[in-house]
Amino acid sequence: MDRARIWTAALLVIGDEILSGRTQDKNIAQTASWLNVQGIRLAEVRVVADKMDAIGEAVTLLAGRNDYLFTTGGIGPTHDDITVDAIAAALGVPVIVHPKAKAVLEAYYAPKGGINEARLRMARVPEGASLIENSMSGAPGIRIGNIFIMAGVPHIAARMLEALTGTLEGGLPLVSRTIGCWVAESEVAELLRVTEKDHEGCQIGSYPFFREGRTGANFVIRSTDEDELGRCSAELIARLSEAGYLAVDGGI
Amino acid sequence: MDRARIWTAALLVIGDEILSGRTQDKNIAQTASWLNVQGIRLAEVRVVADKMDAIGEAVTLLAGRNDYLFTTGGIGPTHDDITVDAIAAALGVPVIVHPKAKAVLEAYYAPKGGINEARLRMARVPEGASLIENSMSGAPGIRIGNIFIMAGVPHIAARMLEALTGTLEGGLPLVSRTIGCWVAESEVAELLRVTEKDHEGCQIGSYPFFREGRTGANFVIRSTDEDELGRCSAELIARLSEAGYLAVDGGI
Repeated sequence: MDRARIWTAALLVIGDEILSGRTQDKNIAQTASWLNVQGIRLAEVRVVADKMDAIGEAVTLLAGRNDYLFTTGGIGPTHDDITVDAIAAALGVPVIVHPKAKAVLEAYYAPKGGINEARLRMARVPEGASLIENSMSGAPGIRIGNIFIMAGVPHIAARMLEALTGTLEGGLPLVSRTIGCWVAESEVAELLRVTEKDHEGCQIGSYPFFREGRTGANFVIRSTDEDELGRCSAELIARLSEAGYLAVDGGI
Repeated sequence: MDRARIWTAALLVIGDEILSGRTQDKNIAQTASWLNVQGIRLAEVRVVADKMDAIGEAVTLLAGRNDYLFTTGGIGPTHDDITVDAIAAALGVPVIVHPKAKAVLEAYYAPKGGINEARLRMARVPEGASLIENSMSGAPGIRIGNIFIMAGVPHIAARMLEALTGTLEGGLPLVSRTIGCWVAESEVAELLRVTEKDHEGCQIGSYPFFREGRTGANFVIRSTDEDELGRCSAELIARLSEAGYLAVDGGI
């Protein structure tokens, strides 16, 4: 396994409810955090409406230029759930009923009034797909090639990610360390720039905040090299101290 | 003004902190809700890293195919704030110091240690740009053509949206109504499909939830036609009642 190579993923969030502002997305942060642990970097995210062409355009491009593509949303039983159809169309394969998905749904709904046409929709997959276990609510997620199709409800998507944990090839996890400081970031911008430049492979992000009438910032250092991350953090703390500021390791 | 035409916007969220999962994005829902009131529909969202080429690619495409493009993030004083440079490069114009932005920043920082090189970075704009007032923290947002460049900190972005309220041409606002029901959405999928089909210009989204061990769903009807929305809502409530379910107007 080549550990130096950076593995990337894209996330496609599908759903009118996110674009209308009705629903606050939680899948971006959840998927991003999970990917970090797998040694895969979330490189880009798109949010599109429940529309065949919008989904298809994004799937083709994102799956093509990333190692993995994850999607959330649009795999339920109702008429606005068109993710499977859109992805199958984009891949040029037919939609079929997956026998195991059908069996899982029949068992899940047996005590809940049985299977019906709408529920059977959730067994439909692009031909050639395999299933991702859903320990929460029966209807499985779907894997086809490097595309992972997950539910839009965040706690169901979480179960699907859980089922995938450790199964995907990745590289070195991105590690991070946060240094907080009660300072306006514009006071220390040059110091940050120089410190980043002195430590190859480390990126320093600066995230200002305003709390209780005071200005502060958290500086987040990210790297795949833990040793270099440690040296960069130590130097940032030292430089902030020299400049007369108290640096709080772990962030404020 | 053509009220029948649908005006669209895209949102580009710029920042490693969103893609790393460190920060939970709030700008998507905030911008979406604000756009609805302006009669502008959020058609697509992208999240990209603090990288010149990723920002440039997205800006060119999204500003080209939507009436408006909003961006959040990357306009602060530190080295990782490259949004202005990336957008200027994508538009093929130089970056200049905007005289009014410089004056605003000088006045804002006069009692806070004065202007410095990092703070002056926040007065840099693509040539030809105008400013968007920031009543919170001095550094203005930037408008160039149909592109609106805003801060990443959500409460600062909110002030910039506030400053733009009522200034952009839009169409009829998208209105919505939510009908809640203690039912598995898969029980009423056909009923939803038929009701949507019977009311032109209305979309019905189905959003399931699980609370206190019970299954329910909120059905959100959206339209630019308030009368048709009313008729569609009434019919959905009637059909749910006929099917033996209690429909809760306003949602659960």
